Amino acid sequence: MTQTLEPDTGTAQRTVETWLADFEAALQAADGTAAAALFATDCYWRDLISFSWNLTTVEGREQVADLVVATASATGACRFATEEPAEEADGVTTAWITFETAVGRGRGLLRLIDEDGPKAWTLLTTLHELKGHEEPRGTARPMGAEHGASRDRVTWLERQQAEAESLGSTTQPYVLVIGGGQGGIALGARLRQLGVTALVIDKHSRPGDQWRGRYKSLCLHDPVWYDHLPYLKFPDNWPVFAPKDKIADWLESYTKVMEIPYWSSTTATSASYSQETGEWTVEVEREGRPLTLRPKQLVLATGMSGKPNLPDLPGMDVFRGDQHHSSAHPGPDAYAGKKCVVIGSNNSSFDICGALWEHGADVTMVQRSSTHVVRSDSLMEIGLGALYSEEAVASGMTTEKADLVFASLPYRIMHTFQIPLYEQMAERDKDFYQRLEAAGFDHDWGDDGSGLFMKYLRRGSGYYIDVGAADLVANGDVKLAHGQVDHLTEHSVVLADGTELEADLVVYATGYGSMNGWAADLIDQGTADRVGKVWGLGSDTTKDPGPWEGEQRNMWKPTQQEGLWFHGGNLHQSRHYSLYLALQLKARAEGIATPVYGLQEVHHLR
Amino acid sequence: MTQTLEPDTGTAQRTVETWLADFEAALQAADGTAAAALFATDCYWRDLISFSWNLTTVEGREQVADLVVATASATGACRFATEEPAEEADGVTTAWITFETAVGRGRGLLRLIDEDGPKAWTLLTTLHELKGHEEPRGTARPMGAEHGASRDRVTWLERQQAEAESLGSTTQPYVLVIGGGQGGIALGARLRQLGVTALVIDKHSRPGDQWRGRYKSLCLHDPVWYDHLPYLKFPDNWPVFAPKDKIADWLESYTKVMEIPYWSSTTATSASYSQETGEWTVEVEREGRPLTLRPKQLVLATGMSGKPNLPDLPGMDVFRGDQHHSSAHPGPDAYAGKKCVVIGSNNSSFDICGALWEHGADVTMVQRSSTHVVRSDSLMEIGLGALYSEEAVASGMTTEKADLVFASLPYRIMHTFQIPLYEQMAERDKDFYQRLEAAGFDHDWGDDGSGLFMKYLRRGSGYYIDVGAADLVANGDVKLAHGQVDHLTEHSVVLADGTELEADLVVYATGYGSMNGWAADLIDQGTADRVGKVWGLGSDTTKDPGPWEGEQRNMWKPTQQEGLWFHGGNLHQSRHYSLYLALQLKARAEGIATPVYGLQEVHHLR
Repeated sequence: MTQTLEPDTGTAQRTVETWLADFEAALQAADGTAAAALFATDCYWRDLISFSWNLTTVEGREQVADLVVATASATGACRFATEEPAEEADGVTTAWITFETAVGRGRGLLRLIDEDGPKAWTLLTTLHELKGHEEPRGTARPMGAEHGASRDRVTWLERQQAEAESLGSTTQPYVLVIGGGQGGIALGARLRQLGVTALVIDKHSRPGDQWRGRYKSLCLHDPVWYDHLPYLKFPDNWPVFAPKDKIADWLESYTKVMEIPYWSSTTATSASYSQETGEWTVEVEREGRPLTLRPKQLVLATGMSGKPNLPDLPGMDVFRGDQHHSSAHPGPDAYAGKKCVVIGSNNSSFDICGALWEHGADVTMVQRSSTHVVRSDSLMEIGLGALYSEEAVASGMTTEKADLVFASLPYRIMHTFQIPLYEQMAERDKDFYQRLEAAGFDHDWGDDGSGLFMKYLRRGSGYYIDVGAADLVANGDVKLAHGQVDHLTEHSVVLADGTELEADLVVYATGYGSMNGWAADLIDQGTADRVGKVWGLGSDTTKDPGPWEGEQRNMWKPTQQEGLWFHGGNLHQSRHYSLYLALQLKARAEGIATPVYGLQEVHHLR
Repeated sequence: MTQTLEPDTGTAQRTVETWLADFEAALQAADGTAAAALFATDCYWRDLISFSWNLTTVEGREQVADLVVATASATGACRFATEEPAEEADGVTTAWITFETAVGRGRGLLRLIDEDGPKAWTLLTTLHELKGHEEPRGTARPMGAEHGASRDRVTWLERQQAEAESLGSTTQPYVLVIGGGQGGIALGARLRQLGVTALVIDKHSRPGDQWRGRYKSLCLHDPVWYDHLPYLKFPDNWPVFAPKDKIADWLESYTKVMEIPYWSSTTATSASYSQETGEWTVEVEREGRPLTLRPKQLVLATGMSGKPNLPDLPGMDVFRGDQHHSSAHPGPDAYAGKKCVVIGSNNSSFDICGALWEHGADVTMVQRSSTHVVRSDSLMEIGLGALYSEEAVASGMTTEKADLVFASLPYRIMHTFQIPLYEQMAERDKDFYQRLEAAGFDHDWGDDGSGLFMKYLRRGSGYYIDVGAADLVANGDVKLAHGQVDHLTEHSVVLADGTELEADLVVYATGYGSMNGWAADLIDQGTADRVGKVWGLGSDTTKDPGPWEGEQRNMWKPTQQEGLWFHGGNLHQSRHYSLYLALQLKARAEGIATPVYGLQEVHHLR
């Protein structure tokens, strides 16, 4: 047995305890001024549904006061305590905290700095469960067996079968999730555990086909530690970067094991919301058979990339070769020996160019604007290693904790943490960047040098995580051309400077529009416009126009359309934010009051 | 951060360190006498393949000396160290230890008592990995993605497909595992991770069908903490007692996720071993198509219960109703309102009687000899709770550690640890046993009062884990009759005392023979006889005749037939012992010397 002495964190711990007590007192008095006085001049309080029933970051004392006045009484937050001893380093005191609200239990991360005494620099508050609706896990796990003898016994299988038969006919899902990739699946798993009647539908024939259908050399670009789904972690023999078919098989098994109601080969053709009944009418085709679903809540988990942007170029009608958007690219098999022109220079373009070259095609990439390229191993080690790596696991960093640390960094200042990482990568891979630029590639590090992750959050585009294809460009195996496309002829692509590229195939790797495009197609343009642009932070950088939003637009939180939600993102986001979306849906299903603070305004339509 | 001071285990730790140093010195000198002098008069050294390349328990100083003299030089054990600080309690000093051998790394558990100084009472030594053949896990996990651009790229899916196509045709499995239940699957997973070419075949159409096909109310009788498979643990929302179809789905998903080469709908029809080539010739039918496989190693994982014992009774030929062995019972659905007689009073009988009663049948159980009944919740709490429970997990007991603690208790004295547990259960469930006996049920606690687990290890029969059906017997819902069956008539079963039981259905819940019966069917009777009885300890108790064996006969270890192995048991055994079987097979596949110490002699044929 090891004995643990009181650690030397007494001062930090006492500081935090005093701060929490003062904060709790201010909240109980709903005293915005008193609460704000506990925060530093530059301060950020990020709340994930525990106070605001929204994903909200307030900045500065004035906004802190406003949040407190608006939400403290209804929230009834109390019992603030530290979860482990507070620590002080470099002038910042950090504490994992727990608290309760009237309806649930919360967890957070507090950072104090000294500004005429200890003041909050950042505060993260999150709700992780609803009282009376705790998930059946650990000591509360189900028994499974029903011991005893009963002539009315219904087995697990019979219950599963009965549920599958009734769902969508005699019973309606409370939540309909359209899109069964990792986002829909993670949310489906959480809703299942929370006892919310939900249904996930997807157009493909099996869960995982979203990955199976992609180009054959594809592996995840994010490493395993970043990719876990809720509840069931990958085993420790799982590859760092899972091949697409392996992650597809995992998603399929996961869907089964987690008992997620999931309809494959099902497309939604239209949806409309009735203000009167508070209900959606969603027309779907399940394996070709039309059917009407009437959920109360509709989640679009159809891919954060949104709808394909297909350009409208003169001559597309006369071009005699194959042409398609990157999302419709069938893979390289048919193009050995063919002349292929790929328009665009981001992830999809590099991936497609690489695979075409591997299959012996003659490939030209057309770069229209600068792109940020970062090598996969550098990104993994420098960008993610502290939170998501074997070393992080060994030092006691759990996935759940890493997600909260990540969530605790306010979007407003996140780039300041990112810039030094990318400076390190630039130094580490100096030769690589020199070769790439020597080949004429127009490279950037983001508007403010903050690199890939900020580009992802701001615009969801403008970068390539290099798993090898960048070298093909650097050494000329994949040819590079520059500029906008002027027009197509029968057999070529002509650029603005007159360059003519012969082509048997043209791939438009021209990106995607906002996810509210899905809403326009499924519901109507009016609803899509009322909801507005999805994704992005309002950072006033390229493709992410201001004003500042503080959070990602419309993701995982209430929108201007009642009962309409957007969910998705990478595996990390699908895992982490599905919790808050699921709890928002559960609260509504149970009739728990969910007064939304600071429902976002719409500044951009797409 | 918490600071950890040197714990107050100094004395225990120093005692262990001294003992280990002395032990290591004795081993390096191959000095049996010196080693034996470090053991107590009553002592047990259990070795799982690290010294003996066998599962062996030596008892007493003389046997310890023999093991040391025979194996120490070849083993080259060294670097003995504690894995965590030793602890002392009730006169026993306990230490988790690690060590190395010439070919691998070991782990063990040592218990010292004071007998003119610290002497070993029990020592467990196990091998957990082979040097140079470590499993690719954690920091050594595969990369998955092959970064770079290559015109010879072979994807994960292509490699999987190529492997599946060649296995059994152009390439031969080194190991053929017959039987794809939890035993075959757990072994298949380990062999896959160790890079041994193996193939699991099973007669059912899908992995998990071994469970799906059983009676519909069946749930596992062991709780979740005892049931984990290697590598991938059940999530913490998994039920305590998994319903059969749920565990079946898990096994199917697990087989896929762990990439186990597995042929469904495949039966082995014959097998023969060539001493010359050291190779088996196994005829199989895969989905009806005949095929010859030529593995070097053949593992029978066809169910530890072995072949059904169908009695040969006068009148079975004239009986006009349905009659079948319990293993062939189709479930209760067809027998509502029918008169059903179930011969036998162990697990299968109770389960079948309960399910028949639930479906409205008129049921009589024929008890031929006494049976041990223990309530599932009592067994879980008192029998397993210390090692396998939510509380054990919370106190830091991992599955792997629990398995080693369990393995460290020598079979010879295991009953002495078990008896007090069953005394507790008898007290706790006193009313239950009184009611059961008042109904005329002939109940026992095992020959020496050591209860269910010892019956399981000794004979694999003679008990019922009550999940409800015992109450049906106690309250007369299921009728009870006693004695041997004399004969059957057209419509009844007549017992030795003349009692005549009308019957539309007779189920023979009359148990199973030894697993070497499978070898007789598949290979020949001579081989089955040479190998001898499988299972049991030689405890000289009912159905487990002496002499004392020290280990379970023929399970997971070399047999008298080269290249023939038996594997199976409950989920715990399938998990834990598959490691040692897999390492024995891996060592042979790699040509590592595996001199077997104490190959078991055969005392019983079946």
